[in-house]
Amino acid sequence: MQIAILIFDGLTALDAIGPYEVLSRLPGAELRIVAKEAGLKRTDTGALGMKADLALDDLEAPEVVLVPGGKGSRPLMRDPEVLEWLRSAHESSTWTTSVCTGALVLGAAGILDGKRATTHWAFLDHLSEFGAEPVAERVVEDGKVITAAGVSAGIDMALTLAARIAGDKVAQAIQLGIEYDPDPPFDAGSPSKASSEVIEMVRTAEPGRPS
Amino acid sequence: MQIAILIFDGLTALDAIGPYEVLSRLPGAELRIVAKEAGLKRTDTGALGMKADLALDDLEAPEVVLVPGGKGSRPLMRDPEVLEWLRSAHESSTWTTSVCTGALVLGAAGILDGKRATTHWAFLDHLSEFGAEPVAERVVEDGKVITAAGVSAGIDMALTLAARIAGDKVAQAIQLGIEYDPDPPFDAGSPSKASSEVIEMVRTAEPGRPS
Repeated sequence: MQIAILIFDGLTALDAIGPYEVLSRLPGAELRIVAKEAGLKRTDTGALGMKADLALDDLEAPEVVLVPGGKGSRPLMRDPEVLEWLRSAHESSTWTTSVCTGALVLGAAGILDGKRATTHWAFLDHLSEFGAEPVAERVVEDGKVITAAGVSAGIDMALTLAARIAGDKVAQAIQLGIEYDPDPPFDAGSPSKASSEVIEMVRTAEPGRPS
Repeated sequence: MQIAILIFDGLTALDAIGPYEVLSRLPGAELRIVAKEAGLKRTDTGALGMKADLALDDLEAPEVVLVPGGKGSRPLMRDPEVLEWLRSAHESSTWTTSVCTGALVLGAAGILDGKRATTHWAFLDHLSEFGAEPVAERVVEDGKVITAAGVSAGIDMALTLAARIAGDKVAQAIQLGIEYDPDPPFDAGSPSKASSEVIEMVRTAEPGRPS
């Protein structure tokens, strides 16, 4: 099963690597890191280089497509070549997925029209610009399209997808293998739980830096 | 503040990228990806290339040191150059940290002698070989050494560390920025919670593949 993760300069690394860590452990997975042009991409912080082994043309009909987010996803929303590739891949895909603001790229490709979808909480309202119904949930499935909320939500999305593809026991074995028994030191991971001061810190500036 | 994440061929990507995503958002963070030799490293699945921008010699006294795990960490445990660098970095560091089997590398460098520490659940017993006291907790602090359990535990560890460095509100803003409000579809992320069948799947083979 070919699983394509689209990367680009300015992506948020964990958007891609959370699902990578889950999906690459699926039996028979052939995980491919793909970009408009193959080669090294730098993440949104600039601090990490990740390599796209393949260009879009090298991979035409992956069974799973995943689009991460990050500030570098904005130019993709206006890139005809990327959008056309996504539309074409979506036609033949078994699952088309996104994490964080990757949903806005799916939206710009027309893939979310009429669908329930989610994205990073700070960008949720934007989904309606693409004909989608914004849903404030961590993982949203609508047919073969699965969208995840911000950044870390990609791990939960990928475990959900792993169960759809290979069954609950395999997904649970992957969860146990990556010891995903989360225990954050604070309960501040959602705007419904964080203080208004912390929400304002994220909305206005560093260090939350939603993208 | 210089934060060094050591990478190597055969690392588990999420071990490094979970903490990267948290720590790179700290105000004033200068996050550096470092390896024995600079250049591209492939992760344990082979499916992802990550670039080490710096070699060990390029970075002598980082304030924070983080060692991820993965099957590629085994050769590091016998690599005098890496172990000497770690010992030297630990002497001047503010925090020395590990995720998953990265703890065994800290152990091999002598850094865990007499300390409470943790690692991936499947490797916990090995910590005593290095004079450490194995602790079955997700994040273990002992002085300036913080160790995390398997793979995904690095996110919780890094949020704990972010709070120590920059205070609770900054850590909470980072948590909210990465929307870390985990909601896994199964409750199977720890051997105390998973079924014996699932534990056996992880212990013996794919797809859990502890490393």
